[in-house]
Amino acid sequence: MVKDPIAFHKKLGGKIFVQSKLDKITQKDIKIIYTPGVAKVCKEISKDPKQKYSLTSKSNNVAIVTDGTRVLGLGNIGPDAALPVMEGKAMLYRKYGNVSAYPICLSTTNKKEIIDAIIAIEPVFGAINIEDIESPKVLEIAQELDSRLKIPVFHDDGQGTAMVALAAVINSLKLVKKNISNIKIVIVGSGSAGYWIAKLFSHAGCKNLVVVDSQGAIYQGRKSTNKFKKEIAKITKPKVKGSLDECLIDADVFVGVSGIKNLLKKEMVQKMSKNPIILALTNPDPEITPKLAKQSGAKIVATGSYNYNNQVNNALVFPYFMRAVLDLRIRDITLDVLYSASLAIAETLSQKELSLERIIPDISDKRIQNRVTKSLKNLKTAKH
Amino acid sequence: MVKDPIAFHKKLGGKIFVQSKLDKITQKDIKIIYTPGVAKVCKEISKDPKQKYSLTSKSNNVAIVTDGTRVLGLGNIGPDAALPVMEGKAMLYRKYGNVSAYPICLSTTNKKEIIDAIIAIEPVFGAINIEDIESPKVLEIAQELDSRLKIPVFHDDGQGTAMVALAAVINSLKLVKKNISNIKIVIVGSGSAGYWIAKLFSHAGCKNLVVVDSQGAIYQGRKSTNKFKKEIAKITKPKVKGSLDECLIDADVFVGVSGIKNLLKKEMVQKMSKNPIILALTNPDPEITPKLAKQSGAKIVATGSYNYNNQVNNALVFPYFMRAVLDLRIRDITLDVLYSASLAIAETLSQKELSLERIIPDISDKRIQNRVTKSLKNLKTAKH
Repeated sequence: MVKDPIAFHKKLGGKIFVQSKLDKITQKDIKIIYTPGVAKVCKEISKDPKQKYSLTSKSNNVAIVTDGTRVLGLGNIGPDAALPVMEGKAMLYRKYGNVSAYPICLSTTNKKEIIDAIIAIEPVFGAINIEDIESPKVLEIAQELDSRLKIPVFHDDGQGTAMVALAAVINSLKLVKKNISNIKIVIVGSGSAGYWIAKLFSHAGCKNLVVVDSQGAIYQGRKSTNKFKKEIAKITKPKVKGSLDECLIDADVFVGVSGIKNLLKKEMVQKMSKNPIILALTNPDPEITPKLAKQSGAKIVATGSYNYNNQVNNALVFPYFMRAVLDLRIRDITLDVLYSASLAIAETLSQKELSLERIIPDISDKRIQNRVTKSLKNLKTAKH
Repeated sequence: MVKDPIAFHKKLGGKIFVQSKLDKITQKDIKIIYTPGVAKVCKEISKDPKQKYSLTSKSNNVAIVTDGTRVLGLGNIGPDAALPVMEGKAMLYRKYGNVSAYPICLSTTNKKEIIDAIIAIEPVFGAINIEDIESPKVLEIAQELDSRLKIPVFHDDGQGTAMVALAAVINSLKLVKKNISNIKIVIVGSGSAGYWIAKLFSHAGCKNLVVVDSQGAIYQGRKSTNKFKKEIAKITKPKVKGSLDECLIDADVFVGVSGIKNLLKKEMVQKMSKNPIILALTNPDPEITPKLAKQSGAKIVATGSYNYNNQVNNALVFPYFMRAVLDLRIRDITLDVLYSASLAIAETLSQKELSLERIIPDISDKRIQNRVTKSLKNLKTAKH
């Protein structure tokens, strides 16, 4: 029996809680954790600001910031209605990454005001997770914050989705014995997820990459574009100008982040190359159901939903990735960082464990954290 | 053995943590608390916004907001160094009020930017606790927020201190058999605490009230003033114009919120009326030590410190008060509300329990919550 989400949420009355690390607090403890003893700790940080990382919760705190303009597949439902998602995300951060995540739902959708608010709350946090903000505004916000904050800015809808998608494709290619450097990948959707998937797949070595939006393939010189689409045009196949239908001819991989249910039709899959790989990542309803995709000839099918096998959902990445970012005090979430984490996720499963219905590890796989942290640590060390 | 606060804080590595309300999270649970199930909950709130109070943690969330300009007695030490205090406060909120409190330390000290940041984060919170912001800026911020937010704004340094001070004075007067309506009370310090103590004591019936700042008594027409001091001048004894020394002649009660250690001298106490009551509330070091105050003839002495008996610290009030405010969905923290809560705190101790060394209940007194909630509930009911 599936529980009713509304009844379940009402019963819980909020899914998270700011907890004290001390169960019992005696009068003696108050003199240490609060006044007068705490004054010593304040003075210490005032004297030597970097001590805030060891003397406070900052090194473990992440703000999940949204303006509620692009929540799940629901669109602009506002900050109040976005809160249940942010709380759910905070639960997963806690459960899988031992990260202390604060939902911050903003009462403004104005770009400058969003940036100002995040800069204002920076001191308490070790990192910012930008979440469910409409594109391309979210990309502009992330870029500006990245240049103005001292702490890392992680854009989970974009970067998290790209990492989990790449991990899924890397392992799928092992199963169908193809190489990313000589296959054709079609990404549908050029919002923040499409943008980051294109950048990361290109970084991973894909040379035949096509990104399709509602106008068809994105190419250099096309009208109805923005600076992020121009950037996409530079790294994708320059001469492809067709519709989704045309673009999919001989494609090896379809990655759907379109937001459009049932967008991918049987005939389209049938035009793809041999052993096609379908990642239909739109939530809650994918671009094609796994059943129809298989019937249409897909070799491997994955979705972003927990209702099917091969759950290519960023929840598999963000808690572990953030834990590593915080622990290693990584400031710049570069393509190298994203790529290393993707590989680590993919390689968590041995060749023996891989199968058509298991291309990536479960979210609860206890090996992931160690893999991800190690790979980012090596990367960090390598760079110095 | 008193533990070293720095070692203790380092060991804890932050005193609070955002905890999930579910210990175990299965794959099935993820479908309810996160995608796709949570979408139903989002839609419900989007349709009927007041449901956010039952379907999310908003009804239990409080933001403790500071800019770090007036932390404890340490002054302007900045938002990073303020965080240990905010975390300590969050622990007490959790322990005594079961309130989920988020420290929000702001990177700006600009009045408009502070207001904008608080307005931006409103959606997640059931109330705002303004904390350790310099005066009179903090009074202006609280006033403006009060007119612009839908949720209550509680100014603990001001309103919380006033409530606990009044509770202490009410019970002290029972012991010395005096009546608030015909005694002289001298408040030293006209920052936010002095301002709110003056307003609340006046509301409680004190007719002979003098507020002293660094220029001496505040009176109508005095130079070097601001709009809050003008307000104080209106409710205090209009003709008193002297220094602290002069003002204390025949005073029954001294309330120190001056921020100045050892301000109150033996000779001053000796000039006070019979059975003087001394509340030396400056932290960490009071205006006079209890020992010296007693030697000087004080009948009752209280401080804000946990190092002495009679702990008149707002920690005794804020967790319980906020719990009641959240549960009763009180929007306006009026003088009536503050006065009722003060009385409830005072009356938690029966006449039999009262003594010169026990004028107010311990912070851990389990009767307080019920008293406070009941009194505010009655008030709320009475007003409708």
